[in-house]
Amino acid sequence: MRIVITGGAGFLGARLARALLSQGQFSVNGQPPGTIEQITLVDQFKPPADLLADARVRACVGELNGLLIPGPNGTQAIAKGTDVVYHLAAAVSAECEADFDLGMRSNLAATQALLAACRALGTTPVVVFASSLAVFGLPAEAPYPSGPWIVTDDTLPTPQTSYGIQKFIGEQLTADYTRKGYIRGRAARLMTVSVRPGKPNGAASGFFSGMVREPLAGLKGACPVAPETEVALSSPNRTIEGLLRVGQSSDAEWGPRTAINLPALVTTVGEMAAALQRVAGKAVADLIDWTPDANIRRIVRSWPGRVESPRARGLGLQADPDFDTVIRDYIRDNPTAIKGITGA
Amino acid sequence: MRIVITGGAGFLGARLARALLSQGQFSVNGQPPGTIEQITLVDQFKPPADLLADARVRACVGELNGLLIPGPNGTQAIAKGTDVVYHLAAAVSAECEADFDLGMRSNLAATQALLAACRALGTTPVVVFASSLAVFGLPAEAPYPSGPWIVTDDTLPTPQTSYGIQKFIGEQLTADYTRKGYIRGRAARLMTVSVRPGKPNGAASGFFSGMVREPLAGLKGACPVAPETEVALSSPNRTIEGLLRVGQSSDAEWGPRTAINLPALVTTVGEMAAALQRVAGKAVADLIDWTPDANIRRIVRSWPGRVESPRARGLGLQADPDFDTVIRDYIRDNPTAIKGITGA
Repeated sequence: MRIVITGGAGFLGARLARALLSQGQFSVNGQPPGTIEQITLVDQFKPPADLLADARVRACVGELNGLLIPGPNGTQAIAKGTDVVYHLAAAVSAECEADFDLGMRSNLAATQALLAACRALGTTPVVVFASSLAVFGLPAEAPYPSGPWIVTDDTLPTPQTSYGIQKFIGEQLTADYTRKGYIRGRAARLMTVSVRPGKPNGAASGFFSGMVREPLAGLKGACPVAPETEVALSSPNRTIEGLLRVGQSSDAEWGPRTAINLPALVTTVGEMAAALQRVAGKAVADLIDWTPDANIRRIVRSWPGRVESPRARGLGLQADPDFDTVIRDYIRDNPTAIKGITGA
Repeated sequence: MRIVITGGAGFLGARLARALLSQGQFSVNGQPPGTIEQITLVDQFKPPADLLADARVRACVGELNGLLIPGPNGTQAIAKGTDVVYHLAAAVSAECEADFDLGMRSNLAATQALLAACRALGTTPVVVFASSLAVFGLPAEAPYPSGPWIVTDDTLPTPQTSYGIQKFIGEQLTADYTRKGYIRGRAARLMTVSVRPGKPNGAASGFFSGMVREPLAGLKGACPVAPETEVALSSPNRTIEGLLRVGQSSDAEWGPRTAINLPALVTTVGEMAAALQRVAGKAVADLIDWTPDANIRRIVRSWPGRVESPRARGLGLQADPDFDTVIRDYIRDNPTAIKGITGA
């Protein structure tokens, strides 16, 4: 098995690579698992050292669009013999709002070029397209739903960002390339990932991680929305579990060619803060700064808080049981990022 | 007012041009109507002579993609000063199934280039994107709905052809260019147009016109599906009426940036045959050849028979009242194509 991960040096890409290397095998379309011989990490950055140290890992560093142009030596990113492609690379939401052409190039044109390269293989590779909860959006001019806003696998997405539009178009292209038999497409929408380790990244959704991660490190963490704000989230571990399962689903298990929602833990920001207090103590939870930010509030208000995932559940995937568990997993996985916990 | 119509030499494009020339004025976003100074017909074919004879008509003949590339003399198809663009040009469904690259180039890449050219104007032109009922499709592997299959403006489209996917992607791009303020987008889904004049065109939906047009000309006309088959159709006149209204809607009237379904007369093939008998007599209706065709049946089965159009109705648009009226209009508009009517 030869697997390609675009965005392979990023947070999720590197985690996915480690999980794949650790399981050592991969099953395509319900067939007996085959040994993973090679994982190619395509990214504009060099992959982490632990991954480069594995003899099965090949790094392909550069701008994705450029790496997908067929050249005299063949396409560099999607080489002959590729069995599986995880397409995680994307310019993020805020970047695409600030620079329309960047999003069209990095998200739309790159996805088109990637699918064309996969088709050119002539071997119907598995292509997991990482879509996003961001395909759903509530128009600013629409009346806010009186009850909870629930989205399911069959809800019509109405993206309110270029990023969301580009992801939704990627879903459509994945579906049609699959219908034509060019690829075996699996489009799965990732939920808000929390708790992300590392530094704040400036994304509007960043506080869903930061309000936990920063206090656990002994720092102030901003939560600019009201405690009753609903959020559909997934821990890094469950997110990777979803990507692994989706890529290894058979055509019959997968069903329709439309995208699926990965499972979400539906909770509120207030509940997240309460979980932090239960797990890490009051002093840590008191580091959350509840100063409101009207701009972030407006963006977050356009996202659905409640997500249903019937097809993902049909694949056996489950949401995180509760946010206490998510925080405990984060503490266990990131021991050097924790300071001054009293209640863990 | 300077108006561009892509596909402007085609059946609908030429009719739209005649209707615009006849009304002489055009209103953008609720403003007082302005005089139409120029209509540019962009098409791979030369427009009909009656249109070329009008001093306001400019023909731009060639392959659309080529005409959209900005050159030393500016973009040829979308010239500076363009106020309104009707984008009707497309490779049709059967062509795109036979030649995937053709559809990606003529429908997807051309639409992207057209939108980019409209954005480059810097003047937020109105862009009417002619989408299609073909965005809706029932997967072959899905169980057929036990009741009638009803689609509305909020139904999640699951296109089952590359043409449908490309149209649905065009809707998404139109929505995002509009959100960004680059264009004033109006994406409207055309219904099955019947009765189309002229010769059979080999499209799977062609019989919805041919079963009426051919008998009215004294010829056998095939109807390869069962009489109870439902169809959502629109006469050429109502279709043009819809395009005119949509292009002249204000932002407030238009509402959300998602596509709307134009109104459809929901009827059955059996009812269409009965209407033909009422209008033109039994001898004409007996020219319908009911030999079934399993292949066409399968394709038609994947289309929705019942379409609801709440947003179009909000714009004051109405479906044809009944198929008898549609046939009478066809006879009146196409006197030279009629032979041997006994009951008209």
